[in-house]
Amino acid sequence: MNGAESLMRTARAAGVEVCFANPGTTEMPLVAALDSVPGMRAILGLFEGVCTGAADGYGRMLGRPALTLLHLGPGFANGIANLHNARRAGSPIVNLIGDQTTWHRDADAPLTSDIESLARPVSAWVHSVESAGELAAAGARAIENAADNQIATLIVPADCQWEEASGPARPAPAPRASEPDAAQVEAIADALRNAQSPALLLGRRGLSKAGLAAAAKVGARAACRTLGETFPARQERGAGILNLERLPYFPEQAAESLQNVDVLVTAGARDPVAFFGYAGVPSRLAAKGCRVLDLAPSAIDLVAALERLADLLPATGEAAPRSDAKRPEVPSGELNPASLGAALAALQPDDAIVVDEGATSGLPYFLSAAGAPPHSYMALTGGAIGQGLPCATGAAIACPDRRVIALQADGSGMYTLQALWTQARENLNVTTVICANRSYRILQVELARAGIAEPGPQALSLTDLRRPELDWTHLARGLGVAAVRVENADDFARELKRSLAEPGPSLIEALL
Amino acid sequence: MNGAESLMRTARAAGVEVCFANPGTTEMPLVAALDSVPGMRAILGLFEGVCTGAADGYGRMLGRPALTLLHLGPGFANGIANLHNARRAGSPIVNLIGDQTTWHRDADAPLTSDIESLARPVSAWVHSVESAGELAAAGARAIENAADNQIATLIVPADCQWEEASGPARPAPAPRASEPDAAQVEAIADALRNAQSPALLLGRRGLSKAGLAAAAKVGARAACRTLGETFPARQERGAGILNLERLPYFPEQAAESLQNVDVLVTAGARDPVAFFGYAGVPSRLAAKGCRVLDLAPSAIDLVAALERLADLLPATGEAAPRSDAKRPEVPSGELNPASLGAALAALQPDDAIVVDEGATSGLPYFLSAAGAPPHSYMALTGGAIGQGLPCATGAAIACPDRRVIALQADGSGMYTLQALWTQARENLNVTTVICANRSYRILQVELARAGIAEPGPQALSLTDLRRPELDWTHLARGLGVAAVRVENADDFARELKRSLAEPGPSLIEALL
Repeated sequence: MNGAESLMRTARAAGVEVCFANPGTTEMPLVAALDSVPGMRAILGLFEGVCTGAADGYGRMLGRPALTLLHLGPGFANGIANLHNARRAGSPIVNLIGDQTTWHRDADAPLTSDIESLARPVSAWVHSVESAGELAAAGARAIENAADNQIATLIVPADCQWEEASGPARPAPAPRASEPDAAQVEAIADALRNAQSPALLLGRRGLSKAGLAAAAKVGARAACRTLGETFPARQERGAGILNLERLPYFPEQAAESLQNVDVLVTAGARDPVAFFGYAGVPSRLAAKGCRVLDLAPSAIDLVAALERLADLLPATGEAAPRSDAKRPEVPSGELNPASLGAALAALQPDDAIVVDEGATSGLPYFLSAAGAPPHSYMALTGGAIGQGLPCATGAAIACPDRRVIALQADGSGMYTLQALWTQARENLNVTTVICANRSYRILQVELARAGIAEPGPQALSLTDLRRPELDWTHLARGLGVAAVRVENADDFARELKRSLAEPGPSLIEALL
Repeated sequence: MNGAESLMRTARAAGVEVCFANPGTTEMPLVAALDSVPGMRAILGLFEGVCTGAADGYGRMLGRPALTLLHLGPGFANGIANLHNARRAGSPIVNLIGDQTTWHRDADAPLTSDIESLARPVSAWVHSVESAGELAAAGARAIENAADNQIATLIVPADCQWEEASGPARPAPAPRASEPDAAQVEAIADALRNAQSPALLLGRRGLSKAGLAAAAKVGARAACRTLGETFPARQERGAGILNLERLPYFPEQAAESLQNVDVLVTAGARDPVAFFGYAGVPSRLAAKGCRVLDLAPSAIDLVAALERLADLLPATGEAAPRSDAKRPEVPSGELNPASLGAALAALQPDDAIVVDEGATSGLPYFLSAAGAPPHSYMALTGGAIGQGLPCATGAAIACPDRRVIALQADGSGMYTLQALWTQARENLNVTTVICANRSYRILQVELARAGIAEPGPQALSLTDLRRPELDWTHLARGLGVAAVRVENADDFARELKRSLAEPGPSLIEALL
């Protein structure tokens, strides 16, 4: 077998099943090798940001890596923005990037560039192989690294793919998460007991059902607020699940929310910082005197640590708080972010996956959906827009039996609209709701926050998406996805109900 | 004035007039500053690859830089692929990238990443400023670097934009190209005189009208073949202009074309190498015994060197060869790359700018257009697909009085289709012809070249753009551009004539 086949066999034997691909000439043997391994599924994206964003969504849902297959430096570069989001989400991904043949690299051919320099900012592990014989073992190391919830990038010169190699390699089994450190959990329990105004901030596995169940006990027993990260990679939500306070986005509001907190326990979340620096606003959001204590560094079993923490706290007799099953009425009348969010929360099916890149139009939905049927909620972790449609695509590949709902701002959606084509090709159960306010609304807010009270015509033109108006129904049809436009809440609810009941992808452009 | 204004005033005073922008929160003061400087035009792209590709097209046409304004690492990353092409084209560009405030960088906020590592592979010059006071001078240095036909990238923390600064700076005047080295030109003239089978390979300024006129004399006087690079950044073509042999794309054919050449003089072109490495095919295309002589290293005035070379060669009395005015008939019947190319060559107006990302569908046009009215021809210099529509957009901004024709493959066009929206907003005179063969045809060829005679279903699925069929008429309409689909040569010619006569953008989807 050649190097490419040894790599694909290595990946498949390690449980990898999907390859999100947009290959080129330097990846041809890897493309051919996809057919040599039963059970490896190739999924084409018409732009690399679709592939990497889909791998992110897939990884968030299944906790194990997909491959991406990308073409040299420029092809990889097109995938960087969504790898940035995936890195912030802690998603496992293995990137395979073809490179010029080993003997041709020094010729500096037109497509040659410094791939490693591009890869490092988004990869925990980067390696460039030098021979076909090394490829299977390098692939195994990439998978080991990805298994640790991070991004591994393997650069593979074309000749290392086509030359003879000796069979697959086996990655070391993923290390089990360590037991919590008893002394540290004890110290945190002590701190909570003695706090005036404690809070628990959850991220990553702390936002799983098990994590939230343990956190609910901690909250009840320590009279402790329970907060969630502003932009969670994946948070379980809905009726019967602890409803977290969401840390606000703007730093003044976030700092105000935390101002009385004297002990902040982070569990899968980082010591929180502002998304951006503003004049006179500190980087850290916790109050100056606040003690910030990390319950479980990354190698530790976070859910076990939360459970142990709950066990160390006195049972109060109070039941741990959980969201009641309570959905909004299906709204009528004007269509705006509030009525759109209420309709979605009112109608979303059991066990939905909601990918929220709704930006300024998304928050009302989040508030409305606390008592909706249990569902998974995924946000824009790294702030690199263009994540929603690809992430929804990957989540739908990962979980074909669940309905995926992409709540998508129009401006951000334009970055990676090609994802709709992949949804059509794979007949994925994705309902896309475009929040069409026809502006970069957040930038209009940020201009004002930057003290630019009356922006001039050049500045205004850069935040305005009219002239011409985008028409998402045509865009979707061009990509093979059925679409409708709605202008009031009644029509939105009707079309949403229809879309949610239909197999395959469809899109609703909601004019706000 | 603040740092942002000092930078914009610096750029404007140096003759910079256009800023291709897709900004975010960390660029707000720069956005506001666009309105503080008369004569600076902001042009919004709905994806960063549109901005950088447009700056490339603008730079190729005018030989002076536009600004791009991009948002942090991920926003810049979305622009890398087209910067890669611009680097290979020798286009002058100044990238401005906002960054987190200086004091907030260490907080590692969600959008923070290593921007310099991303920027270096595509930038000849990268600099990150640390204070507002430094910004104008850094901008001047960026412009000096870009003036040397290269890419300069300036990273600007948000606080350095909004804090007080002291007025603009002035870049040093661009150094004039040096006089040719007399001894070297003499030596090359000698080599040509003594060669059995000499050839002259032109690139960059050698492909300008003046360069080609001088090259024609060299060709006539030295009985020397005149060749052009496979993928020229910009080549003047048409009736009355020297028609170059185009160096073939596939290395076997290119090497065959050069096999008897014993002296190869490069003029603005590199010692030619294969686009990709293939088993048993050398990297260099020139024959083993061939002497390759560079007429003019980059600092030298290339046109002057060509003229001096011509002067040193004996006048033969033969007129320098020039293309006759000769256009194909307007074709009828089947629509295929040949009839499409013939129709375009038959109908293109005087002084057109043709941006060719037609990939496998583009070559027949090139061959047909040698005797068309004089025009500028621009190709995909770096192989990073998704360059055509943005490049056409920038060329139309640069040259509003010329008709721009984008000959665009469907697969590549999907990477940066958002460019059509900018064409509609700015009402640019661009005719886009989509060569819709609904496949990555080149990859089907490359699979076969890689010895994969019967690709399996996974491999086939990665080169096939049906299932579902892309509909470019809907895509264009969704982006505000009028579009039609044609299926035979007669309809294509009719619609092309109409589009070329109409102001503003329009698109023709040509089913091949």
